[in-house]
Amino acid sequence: MGPVYQPSDFPPFAVTVDLVVLTIRDDRLCALLVRRGSAPYKGKWALPGGFVHVDESLDAAAARELAEETGVSRVHLEQLGSYGDPRRDPRMRVVSVAYLALAPDLPTPVAGTDAADARWSPVDDPGRLAFDHAQILADGVERARAKLEYSPLGTAFCSEEFTVAELRRVYEIVWGTPLDARNFHRKVTGVTGLLEPTGGTTTRDGGRPAQLYRRGPAVALHPPLVRS
Amino acid sequence: MGPVYQPSDFPPFAVTVDLVVLTIRDDRLCALLVRRGSAPYKGKWALPGGFVHVDESLDAAAARELAEETGVSRVHLEQLGSYGDPRRDPRMRVVSVAYLALAPDLPTPVAGTDAADARWSPVDDPGRLAFDHAQILADGVERARAKLEYSPLGTAFCSEEFTVAELRRVYEIVWGTPLDARNFHRKVTGVTGLLEPTGGTTTRDGGRPAQLYRRGPAVALHPPLVRS
Repeated sequence: MGPVYQPSDFPPFAVTVDLVVLTIRDDRLCALLVRRGSAPYKGKWALPGGFVHVDESLDAAAARELAEETGVSRVHLEQLGSYGDPRRDPRMRVVSVAYLALAPDLPTPVAGTDAADARWSPVDDPGRLAFDHAQILADGVERARAKLEYSPLGTAFCSEEFTVAELRRVYEIVWGTPLDARNFHRKVTGVTGLLEPTGGTTTRDGGRPAQLYRRGPAVALHPPLVRS
Repeated sequence: MGPVYQPSDFPPFAVTVDLVVLTIRDDRLCALLVRRGSAPYKGKWALPGGFVHVDESLDAAAARELAEETGVSRVHLEQLGSYGDPRRDPRMRVVSVAYLALAPDLPTPVAGTDAADARWSPVDDPGRLAFDHAQILADGVERARAKLEYSPLGTAFCSEEFTVAELRRVYEIVWGTPLDARNFHRKVTGVTGLLEPTGGTTTRDGGRPAQLYRRGPAVALHPPLVRS
């Protein structure tokens, strides 16, 4: 154990984690928002999050907040970036380490211990958000859009078994643009390790049986799918 | 101004910025290291960095540290990620917001105010580093390698005017793999907005005159260059 820091060595910060939890509901890309139950911004909508505890890592704090807010734990969760403008919280220096979670359609959220209400909001119409959360949300959405180009994370929005048409619909909704069905089918089935046939088919749309897939072992798309 | 936090609301953190400054020297990808002048890890090599001041943003703190350590300010600088394991500093909770800087060959660094010595170290042989800096360095190198696939940032390692062969050499050094010269030439000259001919040529290698380029306006490579 070395000497401890003197208080004069550094300004004390609070460190929080904030979550951009994205899912697809009613054919729209949506983010989880909570209504703040206390000041500042009391009554305003914000991203879910909270203080990092003294004994937990940043990743652990993000996973804990995610479980508290959504009840789920087995979804994709990655660090998005840190936000530390000196004026982002009116009370003191707060650095927020933001995380991005991508989840299949989740139940309507319930308000947590420090939130008065919770809802899924389309990402293109979130209303006014507290703090710098509009920027964090926008950065999370752009990260998700970019990741669909070169990673298999589009499948994170799908059920465990899904059709190519369902995966294409994910891409269309996240990117906000229609995609040519045959082109998309050719591209995604040409990416090594992206899709594994389950052997089953579906007829849920009343049409021809469609092959069911699950996510394969690929960690990157070669070649990538590129937004126009 | 809302109510201030009570000390019991949150544990106080110190927040630092640490820099992965990469350059190419002697045909190797190198990172800037400083020898620590004080405890903990006194005398050990570490990434340059320091405490975020009470009145500055994270980006401003990173730019300040970069200028202090290297004397340069006009290089690519981006946030890499935050590191907050509860045991990463033996004295107290410290969250480090790491930044990645990519720079053309810089002069041999001089020791700063809180560093006893400074040097460029090949990234594949940095020795034992203080704190979790080996992990931060590895993450920075991987980010740089990935960015060369889909962004024009390879040019950040070049002089303002450069040849395709010089850019290829950057890719070969950063990726650690030889590349086919004709293939590379065809690919990079086929990416819209990546390279702008300056009109000049060079004969510096004694061979045929080679066309000189500067970086164009592209912010992403379409199509990307993909590591094998």
